[in-house]
Amino acid sequence: MKSSPEAPQGCIGQRVDLIDTPSLVIDLDAMERNIARMADFARKHQVRWRPHAKLHKSAEIALQLEKAGARGHCVQKVAEAEALAAGGVVNLYISNEVLAATKLLRVARLAAQLAARGGRLALAVDSEEGIARLAEAMAVAGSDAGIDVFVEIDVGQGRCGVPPGPEAVVLAHAVARHARLRFAGLQAYHGRAQHLRGAAERRDAIAEVVRSAAHTRALIEAAGLPVPLVTGSGTGTLVHEAASGVYGELQAGSFLFMDADYARNERDPAQPAFEHALFVKTQVISARATHAVCDAGHKSHAIDSGLPLVHGLPPERALRYANGGDEHGILHPDGPKARLPALGRMLWLVPGHCDPTVNLYDHMIGVRGGLAHGVVERIIRVDARGALT
Amino acid sequence: MKSSPEAPQGCIGQRVDLIDTPSLVIDLDAMERNIARMADFARKHQVRWRPHAKLHKSAEIALQLEKAGARGHCVQKVAEAEALAAGGVVNLYISNEVLAATKLLRVARLAAQLAARGGRLALAVDSEEGIARLAEAMAVAGSDAGIDVFVEIDVGQGRCGVPPGPEAVVLAHAVARHARLRFAGLQAYHGRAQHLRGAAERRDAIAEVVRSAAHTRALIEAAGLPVPLVTGSGTGTLVHEAASGVYGELQAGSFLFMDADYARNERDPAQPAFEHALFVKTQVISARATHAVCDAGHKSHAIDSGLPLVHGLPPERALRYANGGDEHGILHPDGPKARLPALGRMLWLVPGHCDPTVNLYDHMIGVRGGLAHGVVERIIRVDARGALT
Repeated sequence: MKSSPEAPQGCIGQRVDLIDTPSLVIDLDAMERNIARMADFARKHQVRWRPHAKLHKSAEIALQLEKAGARGHCVQKVAEAEALAAGGVVNLYISNEVLAATKLLRVARLAAQLAARGGRLALAVDSEEGIARLAEAMAVAGSDAGIDVFVEIDVGQGRCGVPPGPEAVVLAHAVARHARLRFAGLQAYHGRAQHLRGAAERRDAIAEVVRSAAHTRALIEAAGLPVPLVTGSGTGTLVHEAASGVYGELQAGSFLFMDADYARNERDPAQPAFEHALFVKTQVISARATHAVCDAGHKSHAIDSGLPLVHGLPPERALRYANGGDEHGILHPDGPKARLPALGRMLWLVPGHCDPTVNLYDHMIGVRGGLAHGVVERIIRVDARGALT
Repeated sequence: MKSSPEAPQGCIGQRVDLIDTPSLVIDLDAMERNIARMADFARKHQVRWRPHAKLHKSAEIALQLEKAGARGHCVQKVAEAEALAAGGVVNLYISNEVLAATKLLRVARLAAQLAARGGRLALAVDSEEGIARLAEAMAVAGSDAGIDVFVEIDVGQGRCGVPPGPEAVVLAHAVARHARLRFAGLQAYHGRAQHLRGAAERRDAIAEVVRSAAHTRALIEAAGLPVPLVTGSGTGTLVHEAASGVYGELQAGSFLFMDADYARNERDPAQPAFEHALFVKTQVISARATHAVCDAGHKSHAIDSGLPLVHGLPPERALRYANGGDEHGILHPDGPKARLPALGRMLWLVPGHCDPTVNLYDHMIGVRGGLAHGVVERIIRVDARGALT
């Protein structure tokens, strides 16, 4: 008798139409085109590229990105770093604040383990207490391995980070005082700017972000401390940080799968033409006179950034997905010639937000040859699924 | 090196204040008071009580509910039924439509396995094709074990189910034609009515639901087929179905933990005084001049039914939780005397919707003696976490 967590909904060599539902399917051809576009973009702009693994949560995909030119990976949680390190990733940056003593001891242990494997761990800070606790944990762990520390400044997100300016100078010096802590630069990420719909809005928001980061960097260097790197950016605005001359590293991760929400942005002409590569396969389990019901609800995809799009239908036959609860989606005709899908029909959904969608699955099913006639080539484990601490 | 899925964030005997964050914590005393209130309510109204395990997804809790008087459990997915059966639950009702041949074979195998253990499996249907496919799968499995089949009628939810009336009579007879299929009655659930804010609104909505169910039952019995049971209801409206004389079984599950969203309902005086029993423990990781940031975002709790409430603060010191993305929550003062929580402060959140919140965790940490000074008594596995198919 099968028990949770689930076995993969598909197996290698299986035809796409036989994949069980609901399931999370990667169009490998589309994903690899996105990787090539991003690698090419980073090369042209001569910026480091450290993609955020909070998107895919998979060591296998992280290593594939590093083969294509990515220099290490970002994560948000210590447990995500541990899961990716267990899968062979050795250059990791926890681009977030960590305060609990138990977590900081895990950070110190992981820093030593990665150093022993020729890698490096980095962490973000935004308080003197956070810096002192990190230094104490590194001392308790007792290894000679150091850790890279980025001072986070709030460039408009209104979340973590000190204001750009003098407070960041104080923190940079506080970091530099500790032998095992290396001041690595500034963490400056404006998440909300990624989803401003207008290309000009995003350009103007990032222009201000770049000014703040450059000003703060100048203050720290005027105080006698070099700032090795300014890091941040995301898929929605990377064209601006890449051209800024201030950002030396891009953290964009979503380009790999492309959320439905990113498709709602007015595209900047300089932005690579990333395509949707992650889909939820679903089946119609109830066909009514006024609507159809599929077996993918918000337990199958995250809805924090909007409902999924029904993929692969011509505009005149478009279907609209409405929320039907944890386990159901309600399908309505949207295009002028749209017909309700028949009982048993398979459909493809583009998740509104891929990161938390991936977190709902133990495996992603990698398909080669397209969603219509492809076959399963790889079953990709979501190593950091549920990695919260 | 720890790798995902996570080890529990607490261990048995540990003090509450040492539980790691973010984590999902059950106040066992509150949960057991809720169980006693529900068991007493069902006894008084002489209705069967088959709670929905899609809430807690745990065989251990399901068996605890059965000790208290629950007669079997509902689930929404075949994989949920398999996970609970693997944990010792033998009376299970998949209160949802299943259409895929591979899933129906699993249904047939599970029906045989449960029958061999003295239990019984049930399934809902709303189409002749679904009934024919189920009968075929039962024949292919070849066991003599039968399966209970409920015909689902749409009593206002606008999701699955045939309209109340003649169509249901046709399906009931279609079920009865198959030797291994036993027509068990009507599935009639109005999910949206659970969350109508006014007590009178909910009463009126369920009055209409009850009329539809009674009318459909009468038509089926007039056509010569007994209707053994009408089943449905939820925590928001159970007082009305229980008093209806039509519903013989209540499926309410959320009473066990009580979502923040249910707390927004005007309480019906006849409704047992269920209390919040499930909490997300979180820590403040960044303290800014205008707000504080905690380490629980929408990867730690579902937000489909609204954002979580900050629990345990007097109204004048209330804090408001704002969405800070996958991994962060933003805390603002709300009450007149509210102060921003300090760096490192632990807080308790009441999830807006418990079912999909539980699905984000591998374990629930059961605390005895309250959230202030209690200790960890049990680590409860979320057996059906991620059980989608």
